[in-house]
Amino acid sequence: MGRQELVEALRQRLEGHSDIELLHAPDERARLSRDYFDYSPVLSEQLRDCQADLVVRPLGVEAVERVVSAAAELGLPLTVRGAGSGNYGQCVPLQGGVVMLTSALRAIRRLDPATGVVTVEPGCPMRDLDQELRRHGRELRLLPSTWRSATIGGFIAGGSGGIGSIRWGFLRDPGHLLGLEVLAMAQSPQRIWLDQRDAEPLNHAYGTNGIITALQLATAPAVRWHQLSIDCQHWDQAVALLQRCSQSAITLHLATLVEDQLLSLLPTWSGPCSHRHRLLLLVAPDGVGSLQRLAEDAGAICHDLGPEDLTAGHSLRELSWNHTTLHARAKDASWTYLQMLLPQPELPAMQALRERWSGCLLWHLEVVRQQGAPRIAALPLVRWHGNEQLNALMQDCRELGAVVFNPHVLTVEDGGLGVIDADQVAAKRRFDPNGLLNPGKLRGWIERT
Amino acid sequence: MGRQELVEALRQRLEGHSDIELLHAPDERARLSRDYFDYSPVLSEQLRDCQADLVVRPLGVEAVERVVSAAAELGLPLTVRGAGSGNYGQCVPLQGGVVMLTSALRAIRRLDPATGVVTVEPGCPMRDLDQELRRHGRELRLLPSTWRSATIGGFIAGGSGGIGSIRWGFLRDPGHLLGLEVLAMAQSPQRIWLDQRDAEPLNHAYGTNGIITALQLATAPAVRWHQLSIDCQHWDQAVALLQRCSQSAITLHLATLVEDQLLSLLPTWSGPCSHRHRLLLLVAPDGVGSLQRLAEDAGAICHDLGPEDLTAGHSLRELSWNHTTLHARAKDASWTYLQMLLPQPELPAMQALRERWSGCLLWHLEVVRQQGAPRIAALPLVRWHGNEQLNALMQDCRELGAVVFNPHVLTVEDGGLGVIDADQVAAKRRFDPNGLLNPGKLRGWIERT
Repeated sequence: MGRQELVEALRQRLEGHSDIELLHAPDERARLSRDYFDYSPVLSEQLRDCQADLVVRPLGVEAVERVVSAAAELGLPLTVRGAGSGNYGQCVPLQGGVVMLTSALRAIRRLDPATGVVTVEPGCPMRDLDQELRRHGRELRLLPSTWRSATIGGFIAGGSGGIGSIRWGFLRDPGHLLGLEVLAMAQSPQRIWLDQRDAEPLNHAYGTNGIITALQLATAPAVRWHQLSIDCQHWDQAVALLQRCSQSAITLHLATLVEDQLLSLLPTWSGPCSHRHRLLLLVAPDGVGSLQRLAEDAGAICHDLGPEDLTAGHSLRELSWNHTTLHARAKDASWTYLQMLLPQPELPAMQALRERWSGCLLWHLEVVRQQGAPRIAALPLVRWHGNEQLNALMQDCRELGAVVFNPHVLTVEDGGLGVIDADQVAAKRRFDPNGLLNPGKLRGWIERT
Repeated sequence: MGRQELVEALRQRLEGHSDIELLHAPDERARLSRDYFDYSPVLSEQLRDCQADLVVRPLGVEAVERVVSAAAELGLPLTVRGAGSGNYGQCVPLQGGVVMLTSALRAIRRLDPATGVVTVEPGCPMRDLDQELRRHGRELRLLPSTWRSATIGGFIAGGSGGIGSIRWGFLRDPGHLLGLEVLAMAQSPQRIWLDQRDAEPLNHAYGTNGIITALQLATAPAVRWHQLSIDCQHWDQAVALLQRCSQSAITLHLATLVEDQLLSLLPTWSGPCSHRHRLLLLVAPDGVGSLQRLAEDAGAICHDLGPEDLTAGHSLRELSWNHTTLHARAKDASWTYLQMLLPQPELPAMQALRERWSGCLLWHLEVVRQQGAPRIAALPLVRWHGNEQLNALMQDCRELGAVVFNPHVLTVEDGGLGVIDADQVAAKRRFDPNGLLNPGKLRGWIERT
C-alpha cells in the first residue's frame, strides 16, 4: 500500500472509537505539525513542508495503546506532540505520518505527601501541574518560559532547562526524573515502568525512543517568588553583579540579564523605562533585602516589582529564556538567536564577539547551575544574514571557548553536544525497533551499524 | 585600682540584682573560661591558664546593659560566651576579667510567617531554635555538629559553616545574617539595630567588636532528612562518588567522607562494620532513590539508615564536621586536626600528602558550597608530633594549593585568611572604643595605626 492508503486504513481503524479524536482538515494538520521553529530561518526552510497525514487525539492511555498498535501494524511513522511550544521542531513530523496529541492525557496520578514526588501524565499543562503542587506546598523545580502552555511531557522530551536552572541545573541531572511509564511502538504495546536509570535515555530524546504515558518527577518546596529588576549603567558592572548574586546565599529562581538595546525590544512590565542593562530576578521573600543591598553596593538601581502573580500573564518569567527572543522577533523578525555556555572569564569573550559582530549581536544572559556550579549561559539575539555568517559566528564562539547548543539543527544530537548517546539508541531498539517514532530525528539511529 | 579591686568593685555593683547571677567559685570560673581548644595542643599550651576573674549571667537584656555599663566604667575586659562548644578558644578570656554568659538570653522574638526570617536572642540553643522553626515548617540553614548544645549567637560570632554548607555555603555569604541588635561596650550602652551591611563585620568576629543581643537570620523550608551511608572499596572511587552526588540535582544537607582507618575510630551508628571508606549523607526524601542509584553505578554499597530522629543523640550529624575529631580524640588523644579547602583536582594533592605524611594523616572530607560552587573541604586528623611538624604539614598543604584555615591560632584573622578586615576594626572602634571586648583576639585592633 502507498502512504495514502495506509493513512486511510489507519483512519478507518480508529474511526468510531469514542475515546479517539481524528483531525484531518489540512489547516489543522498544518497547525499541529509545527512548533516555534520559525525562530530559526534555517529550520524554517527545512521544516516548512513537513506535515502530518493524520492527527489523532487519544482521550486516555487505552486509546493511546490502540493508536500505537494500529500505526505500528501499518508501519506508519508516529510523532508525539505536547503543546508545540518548543522551537527546534522537536515535534515536527519529518516524514509525515501520524501526529499524536497528548493534550487529553493530563491526569495527576499521584502526589506523595511525604516526598513531594509527583506522577503525572504527559499532556498535563505545566501551569496546571504547578498550581496543583502549590496546593500541597510544592512547586515545579524547572520550567520553560512557555510554562503556561507547555506540557510536562513535552518539556521532559524536548526541553533541557529554564526557569529554576539557577538552583536546579538541567533536566538530565540525576535527581529530577525519577521514573517513566512507557509504551513500545509495537502491535501489542505493554505499559512498562522504567526506573530512573532506564528512564534516562528517554529524557530529551524528542519522543523518538519510546512513548511516554506517565512521568515521575521530584519537586521543590513552594516559594512565593518576589520580582526585582536591577538597572546597571555599565555591562561589566551588570555581569559582575549577576555573578555576585548567584554566588551568594540568596535563594534565586531566575537571574536574567539583558543589555540595554535588547531591553528596548521587550514589553515594559519589568520596571520603569531605562536605557540601562537590566537584571531580572525571582528571589525568595527572605532574600529581597539582601539583593537590594548587593545592588546598592554595586551602584545599581533596584526596582521592587512585588510578589509574582501567577494568575496574570505578565511575569518576569515571560521576559526570560526564549520569551526574550519571542518578544524581540515580534518587533523585528530579522532577529534569530544562539544558545551557549560562556567560557570563564565571560567578559573578554563577550567583548571579543561584540567587536567582531558589531550590530549583529545583542546579549541576553541566564545564570544556570552546571555540574553543581553557577555558570553563565547566553541566548544572544543574532541578526540573520544567512547560513554562512551564522556558522562563522558559531565557530567564533567555539574558538573563544563557548559550548554552543545549536538551535538551528534537526536532530537530537546536533542540538546537544553533537555526540551520539548509545543509551538513547539502545532504548530506541527496545521501544521502537522498526524506527517509526519520528524517523530522521535521532541521528544515532540513522547512523547505527 | 588593681585588677582584684576592680573585680571586687564590679561584683559589689552587680550583687543583689535579681536578674544577674554571679559565679565566682574557682572551678566554675575555670570551666566557663574554656572551650574545646584541647583539640589543639598548640592552643592548649597557650590558653591553659586563661581564666575569668568573675563570671556573670544576666537574665535579660536590661541586665546585660547593667553588666556592660559597669564593666565599661571600671575598664574591665569582657568576654561573651555562648555554650563554649567552639574549639579555637573563641570565648576564652585572654586577659581575664569578666566572662558574660548568654545562656539566659534565649527568647525567639519573632518568626515572620511570610518569609521564615527569625529574630532570636544569642543564647538560644540551636536545637531549641530549630525545633521551633520546624513547628512552622522551617529549619536552620547551617549548623555545627555541636548544634544540640551550641547557641545561635556563639555560632554566628565564632563559627563559619557546617551541616548545610553543601547547600548554603558559609555564614558570611550574603543572605544568611540579615540584621543584629547590638550594644556598645560603653557606660551608657544603647541598643542599636544594624542592617545586614552594618551587621557583617560582627559576623565571625568572636564577639570582639560589639555585644550581640539579638540576631536576624534567614531560614530554609523544613525537610525531614533521610540518612544514608555508602561504602566504597577505593578512595578514588569514594571521592568521585562524593563529587558526583554533589554535582547532581539531589538535595543534600550533608555529604561527609571518612577514610576506612578513621571510620574505625568512630562510633558504630553509621551502618554495619566495614573496612571501607564511608560516605555519610543527609538527603531529602525525594533523593533517596537517586543516591542509591548513583551508589550502584559506582559499585558501592548503600546502607539506608532511615529518617533522622532529631530527638535522639545518634545522628549522622554527630559523625560529621568536628565531631569526627572529637570521637577520634576520645579513643586516642594524640590526634589533632587541620581544616582546608582542597585544591582542584583534589586526588593528586591528597595522594601527595598521604605519601609525605604516611601514618600521620587520616582523611575526612566535607562538601561545601564556596562562591556558589561545590568544593571539597578537608578536616584531616593529624598525629601530633610537635609544632614544627604541624607547620611543615600546613606549608606542604599550601604549596599544593590548599587554602588552610589554621585551627591552632588565637586571633580571628589567623584562623581565617590571615588578612585584617578593616570593617571589623571599624566596628570595634564604634562599639568597643576602649578595646575591652576580649583584648588580644582581634589582631587588626592590636595592629591598628
